[in-house]
Amino acid sequence: MAGNTDALDRPVVALVMAGGTGTRLYPASRSDRPKQFLSLGGVSGDDSLLQQTVSRVGFADEVYVSTGADHAERVRRDVPEAGVLVEPAAKDTGPALVYAAHRIREQVGECVLLCVPSDHLVAGAFESAAETALRGAVETEGLVAFGVEPSRPATGYGYIEPTDTESEWAEIEQFREKPDAETARRFVEQGFYWNAGLFAWTPESLLREARDSPLAPLVEALDESDPERGFRAVEAVSIDYAVMERTDDAYVVPADFEWDDVGAWDAIERVVERDDDGNAVLGDALLLDAEDNVVAADEETHVSTVGVEGLVVAAYDDRVLVVPKDDAQRVREVVAKLRERGLF
Amino acid sequence: MAGNTDALDRPVVALVMAGGTGTRLYPASRSDRPKQFLSLGGVSGDDSLLQQTVSRVGFADEVYVSTGADHAERVRRDVPEAGVLVEPAAKDTGPALVYAAHRIREQVGECVLLCVPSDHLVAGAFESAAETALRGAVETEGLVAFGVEPSRPATGYGYIEPTDTESEWAEIEQFREKPDAETARRFVEQGFYWNAGLFAWTPESLLREARDSPLAPLVEALDESDPERGFRAVEAVSIDYAVMERTDDAYVVPADFEWDDVGAWDAIERVVERDDDGNAVLGDALLLDAEDNVVAADEETHVSTVGVEGLVVAAYDDRVLVVPKDDAQRVREVVAKLRERGLF
Repeated sequence: MAGNTDALDRPVVALVMAGGTGTRLYPASRSDRPKQFLSLGGVSGDDSLLQQTVSRVGFADEVYVSTGADHAERVRRDVPEAGVLVEPAAKDTGPALVYAAHRIREQVGECVLLCVPSDHLVAGAFESAAETALRGAVETEGLVAFGVEPSRPATGYGYIEPTDTESEWAEIEQFREKPDAETARRFVEQGFYWNAGLFAWTPESLLREARDSPLAPLVEALDESDPERGFRAVEAVSIDYAVMERTDDAYVVPADFEWDDVGAWDAIERVVERDDDGNAVLGDALLLDAEDNVVAADEETHVSTVGVEGLVVAAYDDRVLVVPKDDAQRVREVVAKLRERGLF
Repeated sequence: MAGNTDALDRPVVALVMAGGTGTRLYPASRSDRPKQFLSLGGVSGDDSLLQQTVSRVGFADEVYVSTGADHAERVRRDVPEAGVLVEPAAKDTGPALVYAAHRIREQVGECVLLCVPSDHLVAGAFESAAETALRGAVETEGLVAFGVEPSRPATGYGYIEPTDTESEWAEIEQFREKPDAETARRFVEQGFYWNAGLFAWTPESLLREARDSPLAPLVEALDESDPERGFRAVEAVSIDYAVMERTDDAYVVPADFEWDDVGAWDAIERVVERDDDGNAVLGDALLLDAEDNVVAADEETHVSTVGVEGLVVAAYDDRVLVVPKDDAQRVREVVAKLRERGLF
């Protein structure tokens, strides 16, 4: 496959986005230990999600990791093979990706970017899909999203409606918000893809589209070498809202690799083998008459349960979280309260 | 009140029984930190249950604590005002109480014993009830149990059926096993008492009755100054089974103090003030949309819950327990499994 990306007329630069926190995996994730630094108890080896991601894009000519100042040192230590871009402020993926494109163009020159979150799990034919997306980005001069073929009618992901499903890449008809259960079933039947938050584009293409978006003040400030002003001038916004959903030059490349954003604790039962009672366990635990739970603990902690069903029990360091699996998204609310109290 | 016990013709010796573990309060209780050493997060001050108990019997002329060899040092440190009796083996309350009676008779001579568990919570008029029980023990030359007036139809306690409820002390008609809910309601209506595991007797009375019980080989060996042989010769057995339920000389003294054995985690909601949502919380916790839970954590640990109901969540040191309140007794099973694995 490396041969295929070599065939491109410019270098491939992988950009690993490591600016987030992954709050819904609290207490495994904490302000001082964002999700990308977790190995999730060895779901796929002892490497952290960040290390796994950097390995996965190792076919690129260069690899950069974009992160906040607080975590730059840790990134340098964990993935010394990657360059580090320090985001002037944490303002979601929109500003971060525009800033990275601008900086990488300065440092590398003409290239094509493969932008990947640092905290997802991926298995299977990633490189071939990436190669197609990169070629698409160069040939269309547009913005290419990866569209993961759904394995279930998930309500927790956004969907991408393609104009056709036969081409190597297709124009995007429409981005679809996270659907309810019924709509999700229809989306899957209609051949829509999951929006996995992975993208390919050239710096020129992204900056061109960003100039025609709420991120225009940032691009302008970057052109004037004043990133701080640029970040002050824009709101925190995802690249989807700010650019992808607005542009007419958005494409999707079908990706048939296995993908999970491990967004919340209920994801654990999708990514580890469950026991005979349907429990997904990371770490050391004793479960008696317990069914369909997610139990996760660090190496120092031991969890015991009796007679519980459908719960998440997560114990890391000196923190414990208990929440029904169906409410796993509500861990956001816990983290918001803990932040207020200076406890996150 | 001290005046009343002074009026007895012999010294009062309080015997605090501290040989148990309190396994159902795991993980607060552990093999190296039995329940009597817990303060339960200050339910009634920062003193441990043992320290509270020794204070409570401070009106006695002498105080002894009976415990296992593993914990003797800790007892000496925590309650230096008490003498320590080291049980040759952990064989439940029957052998422990017979051994203590024999030893105390050797050391103190003629006296009357007030035998109290070290790990219960008591509030209110304890001393006056104790004084009555001690007088009863001397005057009847029998074995006197405290009968706590029930505040609810508890199914977790044994009951005592008195021959009458008007006297200062009454002969016991019958001991009743832990009842089902319907039977418990009837017991309460009929004026039965809770068997609180508190007793008064003279050493002579107890040893006399023990000689006519399964504990006879122990008494005999003690008379021959061979306690180790005595403990080897008897099974682990409670004083209730071995002696109280067999003798014709058992009496009950009604006790109107508040009493709770804090036997399992569901007890916590009886002994701490609950929040507006019915949650009983020991320690620092964040509860969102959570009702009727018991949450207990040590000072180093923080528990968060969202959307859970009727659960016990207990987190101490590096251990976490989650169990429905209704299954709080099943913590025994957890501890049995943990013991098998050397983890208790």
